[in-house]
Amino acid sequence: MTIFTKIINGDIPSYRIAENDKFYAFLDIAPLAEGHTLVVPKVEVDKFFEIPDVYLAEFLLFAKKVSEALERSFECNRIGVTVIGLEVPHAHMHLIPINGVDDMNFSRPKLKLSPEQFKGIQEKILANFEER
Amino acid sequence: MTIFTKIINGDIPSYRIAENDKFYAFLDIAPLAEGHTLVVPKVEVDKFFEIPDVYLAEFLLFAKKVSEALERSFECNRIGVTVIGLEVPHAHMHLIPINGVDDMNFSRPKLKLSPEQFKGIQEKILANFEER
Repeated sequence: MTIFTKIINGDIPSYRIAENDKFYAFLDIAPLAEGHTLVVPKVEVDKFFEIPDVYLAEFLLFAKKVSEALERSFECNRIGVTVIGLEVPHAHMHLIPINGVDDMNFSRPKLKLSPEQFKGIQEKILANFEER
Repeated sequence: MTIFTKIINGDIPSYRIAENDKFYAFLDIAPLAEGHTLVVPKVEVDKFFEIPDVYLAEFLLFAKKVSEALERSFECNRIGVTVIGLEVPHAHMHLIPINGVDDMNFSRPKLKLSPEQFKGIQEKILANFEER
């Protein structure tokens, strides 16, 4: 069972942002920027494009709602999207509020945030879901 | 009219990889790796998540076919995906054959390839579409 499945099942705690029958979104705990969120399908597949088509067809529609809440929550030019997937063998998409191309550089040091800071970021994003 | 619409219309030449009624895929001429391909919707929208839902629902299914051909064409761990979009105001997705996280670093210098090299890469990928 992957670490992401354990997170989805609630066996490992996470800062949940959104969830439906097919996807789970939560804050990346090694973020490149405040609000950096992971979107994970509720099916264990290593490579992104091996995710079943029925998930692929809904993936961006789910990610869009998360992205809109992120964009309302943080000062940014837009939300960057990336799928790398070399570390955890459970396909996932990064959504990152960005202002410049270097904000998407995964070779950069990650932010170190306290649990209180993560909680504050989570609450801010959730409030912006509710706005609509 | 964006540069990508001109490419889609054939007013600016490109190394075409795939096309259907909604999307156009072609080689990035400032690639991070051989086979670096752009997927562009045939609708002019700046931000990725402002692309109409009917396109978002099919985007990854189209990109998947391109990704599979790329993966068969180049030595790589997998195909990385990224959407940044700070330069051209026409939403687009990068598909990049990667082996390490730094292969997705857009701050790196891009490859300089000759027209003959691009043509060779294009032919290789197209042959791997036809394989199936």
